[in-house]
Amino acid sequence: MPVTESATDRSVPSVEAVNTMIGELFPGSNNECAELTPTRAVARRDISDAELRPGAFISGPSQFGIADAALWYLVFGATGRIEPMALTSELSIRFLRPAQGSVLWAAATLDVAGRRNVVGTVRVWCDERADRPTATAQGTYVLPL
Amino acid sequence: MPVTESATDRSVPSVEAVNTMIGELFPGSNNECAELTPTRAVARRDISDAELRPGAFISGPSQFGIADAALWYLVFGATGRIEPMALTSELSIRFLRPAQGSVLWAAATLDVAGRRNVVGTVRVWCDERADRPTATAQGTYVLPL
Amino acid sequence: MPVTESATDRSVPSVEAVNTMIGELFPGSNNECAELTPTRAVARRDISDAELRPGAFISGPSQFGIADAALWYLVFGATGRIEPMALTSELSIRFLRPAQGSVLWAAATLDVAGRRNVVGTVRVWCDERADRPTATAQGTYVLPL
Amino acid sequence: MPVTESATDRSVPSVEAVNTMIGELFPGSNNECAELTPTRAVARRDISDAELRPGAFISGPSQFGIADAALWYLVFGATGRIEPMALTSELSIRFLRPAQGSVLWAAATLDVAGRRNVVGTVRVWCDERADRPTATAQGTYVLPL
Repeated sequence: MPVTESATDRSVPSVEAVNTMIGELFPGSNNECAELTPTRAVARRDISDAELRPGAFISGPSQFGIADAALWYLVFGATGRIEPMALTSELSIRFLRPAQGSVLWAAATLDVAGRRNVVGTVRVWCDERADRPTATAQGTYVLPL
Repeated sequence: MPVTESATDRSVPSVEAVNTMIGELFPGSNNECAELTPTRAVARRDISDAELRPGAFISGPSQFGIADAALWYLVFGATGRIEPMALTSELSIRFLRPAQGSVLWAAATLDVAGRRNVVGTVRVWCDERADRPTATAQGTYVLPL
Repeated sequence: MPVTESATDRSVPSVEAVNTMIGELFPGSNNECAELTPTRAVARRDISDAELRPGAFISGPSQFGIADAALWYLVFGATGRIEPMALTSELSIRFLRPAQGSVLWAAATLDVAGRRNVVGTVRVWCDERADRPTATAQGTYVLPL
Repeated sequence: MPVTESATDRSVPSVEAVNTMIGELFPGSNNECAELTPTRAVARRDISDAELRPGAFISGPSQFGIADAALWYLVFGATGRIEPMALTSELSIRFLRPAQGSVLWAAATLDVAGRRNVVGTVRVWCDERADRPTATAQGTYVLPL
């Protein structure tokens, strides 16, 4: 019998459980969880007109926000539990091309999950154009003690 | 007679001109310019309840947003002209302590202004506590060709 | 007949051509190119004792150096030509676990290649442990005009 | 009688004590400490020919290395004790202009010192040109438990 399980064997919170928590604790959030595994999380967001810059470009802070949300969901997948008080420690983002569309997506993949921190890499894109990322990011979440 | 002027001699757009442009082109923005010189820009933002997390903490994306805004205003000061289409190329942010308060501030200082790019360092804080930053950031804006 | 080729169809400089250029122009470099495609580059480095910290840990600057080298090689793959004067614009790196071993590796994957910039994501590891990265990084190279 | 001292009242290790530790534990290091207070640390490095790129430019990894060293010394100043095993958690660096000269300098200023982490901002320059930084950086050191 194995003493340790690999990350991919571990159970993760359901997408529904994550979205229920967000709706209860963070009703101002516009992001929702669309997919969750121990090593990957996807966030989606319907873009409102208030987030558009002239030319119908989706703003940088909106893209940062969804990248940050995807990393937060990834913490839940990597640790196997919903951690509402996990906090962003640091995040760097690069904007790659103009972002236009009605739905914004972000997929975070796990770099490492330790006892204190979870580090991941995130790609952001619009609508169905996952092959044409509008931003790429990396960041660290710190777990509550 | 000097061939080049130092950055500090140069005229900069007025705070009023910056805020008028923001109101016209970016009516969804919650940030405003509070101070502008060739080497420093300050942004302020009244915090709304929708930006608060449980415990009345100001969200990370709100802090990113104001840091990004302060860098954008800094571009106007460093170049001496309002450049609405200057775009964030990359930005990294570190969160230093919980952010609580009713007004969020960010001060950006100039690292370098070149023909293509403006790079600056930003500190974010709440209310009157400029000596207790809640976030620190650095980033690059790219100028339109 | 297609007007544009996809990135993966494009010819890339050979690994040998890259290493010959490095040996001629950068004889102080300890990194070499091990693999090159239009969307991926791998760098390798034999670790010398001078790079080890107490406990036989490979230093952070050595890991930064190989991540930077992998991104530089990626520029050659993404543009289809050797660009010795492409320069690092910015790079952020996160250290994930202690680095111990005799060979250091870095694999850079392409996020975007534009006319001005190439952006990529890099993972660093030791010896055969590609599944246990010691560092993860993202960065931007600027192309000569 | 105050229960807590402000950071600026605290005693810091001497520059000599820092350099003695470096020489004993990290004999491969080319950086040395030139100044240390609770909120600021300066590192210096004599540039060797092996670190020069064509055109006599100081390489990016050398600049990263001295920025990392300055942050490490800052940990000693901010905590009041020499912590050889404090480790870089993450660091982002932006290159601002070509670096040419015979001595490389880096000054790190404190953003925050917590129980787990120290965060600082670093500027790098050559020779006497502190007003013309060649790189700007921010990073996080994690303290040993």
